[in-house]
Amino acid sequence: MAVRVDLNVSLDGFATTTDQTPENPFGDDWPRLVAAYAATRTFRSRVLGDDSGAGTTGVDEKYAHAYFEGIGAEIMGAGMFGLHQFPDDPQWRGWWGDEPPFEVPVFVLTHTARDSIEFANGTVFHFVAGSPEEVLPRALDAANGGDVRIGGGIDVVRQFLGAGLVDRVHLAVNPLVLGRGERIWDGLRGIENGYDVESEVAESGVTHLTFRRG
Amino acid sequence: MAVRVDLNVSLDGFATTTDQTPENPFGDDWPRLVAAYAATRTFRSRVLGDDSGAGTTGVDEKYAHAYFEGIGAEIMGAGMFGLHQFPDDPQWRGWWGDEPPFEVPVFVLTHTARDSIEFANGTVFHFVAGSPEEVLPRALDAANGGDVRIGGGIDVVRQFLGAGLVDRVHLAVNPLVLGRGERIWDGLRGIENGYDVESEVAESGVTHLTFRRG
Repeated sequence: MAVRVDLNVSLDGFATTTDQTPENPFGDDWPRLVAAYAATRTFRSRVLGDDSGAGTTGVDEKYAHAYFEGIGAEIMGAGMFGLHQFPDDPQWRGWWGDEPPFEVPVFVLTHTARDSIEFANGTVFHFVAGSPEEVLPRALDAANGGDVRIGGGIDVVRQFLGAGLVDRVHLAVNPLVLGRGERIWDGLRGIENGYDVESEVAESGVTHLTFRRG
Repeated sequence: MAVRVDLNVSLDGFATTTDQTPENPFGDDWPRLVAAYAATRTFRSRVLGDDSGAGTTGVDEKYAHAYFEGIGAEIMGAGMFGLHQFPDDPQWRGWWGDEPPFEVPVFVLTHTARDSIEFANGTVFHFVAGSPEEVLPRALDAANGGDVRIGGGIDVVRQFLGAGLVDRVHLAVNPLVLGRGERIWDGLRGIENGYDVESEVAESGVTHLTFRRG
């Protein structure tokens, strides 16, 4: 029943990228920021549907595997679901496609009431209003003994971290300097207090940083 | 003949602290930022003059030892020498005491001409004006085959990094979030290009990050 955060960040702490364009919807920075994660066997299987067994099997894979383990529900901001792009279209089912990779109840933070959306693979999006303290019990209840992930965006993650509601933070720190975007650390001076911090370096050069409630 | 940078930084990239007061001249943050380094045998011996053999001997010590190895000259900003505190006192010999821990020629960047200051332990402060590109050859020459360290402040380090003049950067990334100060990364988007980046985790929880010219 832990509340968890998992993010890829740059050396300078940016967890978002800013060079997306209509022609290049992911930009050039995002693929670089998530390259080591996207190369893992778990990502290829779970997100890309490639069950050939291809993908890395080292330290990055260990964390990628753990990423999906034990999650019973997820909380995300409206932007991560896609509501900022299609706020007025009640038929919009998010930008996660027909098989959203969550496979658990997902609580999308929004002030606009919407019907829940259910997918065949177990993903159900619920649209809820409220503070982190108000929404978290609903997600924990839905997680049915599993963990709750705070998925994003970065502002949502910072709110839950700042409110002291997160038990475990895993950051994959990628060896690049982005220089712009949203920083995970802003407003979180002293956040290390109350956590044990561990680091592990992967073959890819990524440093996996884990904060665990001490 | 490498140009080197060695710094302690926080997880959020701050290499300076801001809570110094006249009553608490180092503040509370600085001792936390350099705690792992200050605990090493090399620091205790070389900086504190404690030759009892006390101090840590693990990964942090390996980097602390390397910190002093092979350095033939240093470049620092006026603030790191202390000129911002005593700009008009030509007798001011800096705040490094009678045995500055450099033991090599040190080039202090300032627009005000001053006589060089020599110490018995081999430290000589020279006061020079000029761009990074102008000052570096003088320091390389004085280093007599050794390496040149760009010591600080952070603005000086960023200038040399931004000008592409640094061959090796060692950052000891300490597991704390300071939230304020000067960031090493500001203005250095893409600095990883042209470097090989390696990470190593110390027993203390510090991650040692090394950029080497590829």
